[in-house]
Amino acid sequence: MDSLARVRVVLVRTTHPGNIGAAARAMKTMGLARLALVDPRRFPDPRAEAMATGADDVLAAARVCATLDEALAGTTLAIALTARRRELSHLALDARAAAGLAAAESAQGGEVALVFGTEIAGLANEEVIKCQRVAHIATSPTYSSLNLAAAVQVMAYELHVAAFGPAVPDNQRFDGATFADIESFYAHLERNAIASGFLDPAHPGRMMERVRRLFGRTRLEREELNLLRGLLTAWDGEGDRNS
Amino acid sequence: MDSLARVRVVLVRTTHPGNIGAAARAMKTMGLARLALVDPRRFPDPRAEAMATGADDVLAAARVCATLDEALAGTTLAIALTARRRELSHLALDARAAAGLAAAESAQGGEVALVFGTEIAGLANEEVIKCQRVAHIATSPTYSSLNLAAAVQVMAYELHVAAFGPAVPDNQRFDGATFADIESFYAHLERNAIASGFLDPAHPGRMMERVRRLFGRTRLEREELNLLRGLLTAWDGEGDRNS
Repeated sequence: MDSLARVRVVLVRTTHPGNIGAAARAMKTMGLARLALVDPRRFPDPRAEAMATGADDVLAAARVCATLDEALAGTTLAIALTARRRELSHLALDARAAAGLAAAESAQGGEVALVFGTEIAGLANEEVIKCQRVAHIATSPTYSSLNLAAAVQVMAYELHVAAFGPAVPDNQRFDGATFADIESFYAHLERNAIASGFLDPAHPGRMMERVRRLFGRTRLEREELNLLRGLLTAWDGEGDRNS
Repeated sequence: MDSLARVRVVLVRTTHPGNIGAAARAMKTMGLARLALVDPRRFPDPRAEAMATGADDVLAAARVCATLDEALAGTTLAIALTARRRELSHLALDARAAAGLAAAESAQGGEVALVFGTEIAGLANEEVIKCQRVAHIATSPTYSSLNLAAAVQVMAYELHVAAFGPAVPDNQRFDGATFADIESFYAHLERNAIASGFLDPAHPGRMMERVRRLFGRTRLEREELNLLRGLLTAWDGEGDRNS
């Protein structure tokens, strides 16, 4: 059950075919497969294929539509991405909220479209008004010129996080050292510190507390503990040779 | 007080100058200004400038460094972005957690670096180990080939959200209709529905409940309510003429 299977990306009147290819790649990295192109200036085009690198299946399956209506056929929720606020605007969502809404709609069986306008002018008002929601990606107030494929990448990423969570599946095991072994290490370190004259047992101060704080924060793996015990033992031996 | 002012992006041995330009643009859209380039294959380069479109100030201020050590000088926190898990890995953070950590460190006065490797091979182990954290951007398990500039865009976006929140500043006011006006509208609609024979007052069913649910969900603006009242009044008149 893929909760993003019913999400389509709609690119309206895209000027540069390279952006179509880069958008296809951005989609595929986040598990989106359905691309619709409304009246693209040039498509198919070798520059689109060059930028897709590995996402040529998304490109090959792209639907070319004459109108936005055609691209939105069957959708139950269409979200228009716009860079700026409009006079007669829908209540606007931020990118994260829009992705959450889209992923939830798709997971419930709805058909969802994310609609992106042209590189320069964005979407026309009559295109925005065909969607039920408007979404903005928050940008710097002084420079908001997000590249089209970059905007698709951010939304695709947010959709992936909304559907599958932010975490990368963890195939790594943390082989943590046990409490008793860690306590033995602290005791060994304290013995060496005293034997070497670094720590005065009559006035120990907070040294061991600091050591515990450091290794507690980092959490020790079993192999790391063995390495530290090895160092302490080498130090013992060193001390013996020096005495 | 800009909490992202002390965050630098470090690109290591970047192959394609276009990616440097696109990364600069991605940074600037999210309010990041400091770029360091470790041993770039070609820089400066007209292809970098072409892709920067408007972020040429970021590009012009970029520091070219011979080594990663030079690029990390002064940092208190360096986070390595890697596409895959490594045998001897740091505990890995997801992109969102890494951005939160970086923004918090910068806000507290720390100097932070986000370190990105080459397009094909990523970072070498000896580079990763110079950082205190490793971060991964979650991707599709079947296609994780995020473009370098796209990865910078996602991290810069997450940093911006971590520092300033996901929302676009709202300069739009919602001029909501008042309770009394909305109740008058419901009463008017009900009168017309009865007068026209659509609603039988002896068996009203759930019609008005459905109407309230619809308009309650959408929330009515004052102007929208005036428009609906105008339509109802026109309907009244129409009924008069027909009778």
